[in-house]
Amino acid sequence: MRIYDLIEKKKRGSALSDEEIRYLIAGFVSGEIPDYQMSAMLMAIWFNGMDDREITTMTIAMEHSGETADLSGIDGFKVDKHSTGGVGDKTTLIVGPIAAACGVRVAKMSGRGLGFTGGTIDKLEAIPGFRTSIPREEFFRLVSENGIAVIGQSGNLVPADKKIYALRDVTATVDSIPLIASSIMSKKLAGGSDGIVLDVKTGGGAFMKTLDNAVRLAEQMVKIGTEAGRAVTALITNMDSPIGYGIGNEIEVRESIDVLKGNGPEDLKELSILLAAQMLCTAGKGSQSECRQMAEEALESGRALNVFRTMVIAQGGDGAWLDEVIEGRKPLDAPSRSIRAEKDGYIGKMDTEGVGIASMMLHAGRKTSDDVIDPSAGIILRKKQGDPVRKGDVTAVMYARDESLFDEAEKQFAASCPILGTCEKPEKMVFARADASGVTYL
Amino acid sequence: MRIYDLIEKKKRGSALSDEEIRYLIAGFVSGEIPDYQMSAMLMAIWFNGMDDREITTMTIAMEHSGETADLSGIDGFKVDKHSTGGVGDKTTLIVGPIAAACGVRVAKMSGRGLGFTGGTIDKLEAIPGFRTSIPREEFFRLVSENGIAVIGQSGNLVPADKKIYALRDVTATVDSIPLIASSIMSKKLAGGSDGIVLDVKTGGGAFMKTLDNAVRLAEQMVKIGTEAGRAVTALITNMDSPIGYGIGNEIEVRESIDVLKGNGPEDLKELSILLAAQMLCTAGKGSQSECRQMAEEALESGRALNVFRTMVIAQGGDGAWLDEVIEGRKPLDAPSRSIRAEKDGYIGKMDTEGVGIASMMLHAGRKTSDDVIDPSAGIILRKKQGDPVRKGDVTAVMYARDESLFDEAEKQFAASCPILGTCEKPEKMVFARADASGVTYL
Repeated sequence: MRIYDLIEKKKRGSALSDEEIRYLIAGFVSGEIPDYQMSAMLMAIWFNGMDDREITTMTIAMEHSGETADLSGIDGFKVDKHSTGGVGDKTTLIVGPIAAACGVRVAKMSGRGLGFTGGTIDKLEAIPGFRTSIPREEFFRLVSENGIAVIGQSGNLVPADKKIYALRDVTATVDSIPLIASSIMSKKLAGGSDGIVLDVKTGGGAFMKTLDNAVRLAEQMVKIGTEAGRAVTALITNMDSPIGYGIGNEIEVRESIDVLKGNGPEDLKELSILLAAQMLCTAGKGSQSECRQMAEEALESGRALNVFRTMVIAQGGDGAWLDEVIEGRKPLDAPSRSIRAEKDGYIGKMDTEGVGIASMMLHAGRKTSDDVIDPSAGIILRKKQGDPVRKGDVTAVMYARDESLFDEAEKQFAASCPILGTCEKPEKMVFARADASGVTYL
Repeated sequence: MRIYDLIEKKKRGSALSDEEIRYLIAGFVSGEIPDYQMSAMLMAIWFNGMDDREITTMTIAMEHSGETADLSGIDGFKVDKHSTGGVGDKTTLIVGPIAAACGVRVAKMSGRGLGFTGGTIDKLEAIPGFRTSIPREEFFRLVSENGIAVIGQSGNLVPADKKIYALRDVTATVDSIPLIASSIMSKKLAGGSDGIVLDVKTGGGAFMKTLDNAVRLAEQMVKIGTEAGRAVTALITNMDSPIGYGIGNEIEVRESIDVLKGNGPEDLKELSILLAAQMLCTAGKGSQSECRQMAEEALESGRALNVFRTMVIAQGGDGAWLDEVIEGRKPLDAPSRSIRAEKDGYIGKMDTEGVGIASMMLHAGRKTSDDVIDPSAGIILRKKQGDPVRKGDVTAVMYARDESLFDEAEKQFAASCPILGTCEKPEKMVFARADASGVTYL
């Protein structure tokens, strides 16, 4: 088999055989297929796509390119949750504890963030002492005992994705549904959970700008997971505005705790309940409405907060620090600057990506993988889309250890947060659900 | 400027600016742009094409990526000739001397062949003593004195094409009209001639399988050359059958001498006169019919043969050897084997590429650039398309120093040369002419 012939075949619009796809992935990981041939193939895939069989075969080949997690040592139904990424998206910190509080096992391997904000691992590491690198046996024990543990992805999980993604990132081939779906699902399959709930974001702050594309991606990932024998559901949710008010690592931990206490912003709370309920459904805990009720109860009763507290302490987090935060006795300790409205009006639809970039400029996120995150850096919105403002009102507060970053970040934020003459309310939170039985628009 | 953004732009179907194209070529030649990004760009070009301005800008950027030949030291109108490549195509050896005999200057830099048969340089090197590597001053002097000299391309002519072609060759991006046109024309422009006659082949033995594609390529190359201030004409000619009867380096030199003596196969003679007449037209020597008459006269009078003989001797070729060949006193000295018809019938349309591969298997051509050519190897056809044969008739004779190659090459030849129950005559030799005023179907 020659990679040249496979490139030619895909370029002509033909489907690759399973054997050819396995050769492509194995050959690229081993180094037999050089980058310059793989990048031509990726561009041909960008143009001509792949059919369902090709995508599933590629995903499973990628899944098995390195180690895979065998979670069979943990009793019970394990459910994983993945978000395609958004600004202010801290739902994992909330839905994991809710699901665990309802009897689902959450054995989660998360990534670091690259881009606007940190990943779940970066957020958890904003908690003093929190360990995200834990030996396998201890990880299994913690999930069995507490229902949940969240660790960083091990070095050799899905090396094919690491290598392919690095190449896509520099060859303008990231935005391809077959390549996105196989990248996400190879990692989720390798993660070993029985069920997977996907939060596919759509809108201005999401990778998928249109609902149609988001639904296509969701359907594709559900197909792959179903074919691979997992229970997969995707919610297609609104990412036109930042989720909640907080953007930044410690800021998002604090806002998550607010929600777990039963408070917090409505949009974040609603999205968290939707996702947690979906995890319970996926685990077979009941109907959609029963699962929603269970999730709400876990949140309102404080059981989810207890699970979160137990998890943090079990993973080495500073319990005294956490309790002070929970009790509201420990304000965020970082230099800040307020951003004020330049005129009267209503907050318009934000350029959510632009807001994310402003938070990255404060070092809440990484521009390149070498960048060091400032855990306390970020932005707390005081106003969101549709809110009335008067000239001089504080619209947001920036935080950063390095105060010299404020000037540029403020410009970036102001440019991303328009003030309009009329009030435009944001759209609903969830648009559709995709599972093995099809797509339901909500 | 970032190559990533240029890939993205081309992927989206937008035209690159002149500045962007110059950056692309210069950056790739300097090594700043790595292979894996260039190959993604080449594949995006394969899918989305380039407009006339982009192609011309790219060609001129490639032309100037290395040295260019300044032929201003040679008086008179210099005309170059290029063939897109075919099996048995030895016309350069004939049309160069005809054109020179009629007062046109032919300062030709030719390449070696890669593929079915050798290039012009390989063919000339089959003449004992012939030097294809000549210092610039001597090259200019020879063209001025004799009207013609043919040398190998210097090391640093159009390095951009060498590097891009090497990448296209392994990433399935060879068959793209913008990339083919810029590759050919960058070398022709760098060659420095005032006029260029292109022989664009079409048919089974050509890279362009359809007349439409051949015409598109011809038009594109004429546009580039015209834009660059050169007089360019392209003939679109038939490459359904091998040209003439001889395939192989010394074999083709001998057949060319036959034509220069006024004999030789009709198809080769006709194509040579057409191309030579076109060179004269391009040099402003007269109308199409006047130029044809001049070319015929140069051939029939023996003046073209004299020019050829002068050129060979001036470039170190063995005059005694040449004269013996001209006088028919020196038969080809290599082991041979005849191929015989397996049944009665008529020779059908040959798989011309397949015949080329058979000759390559005898070492008349190179499979990889490291392969060493056997100058005397090749095939002499005894029958061509439409000729009647009886079982046992010799259809072709193979020549090779290494007789062990005959078995496989014979199989390959027989599979490429069908014998049919009915007689199908070949199509005409030339289909169309493209120049600055447009395309004329002939």
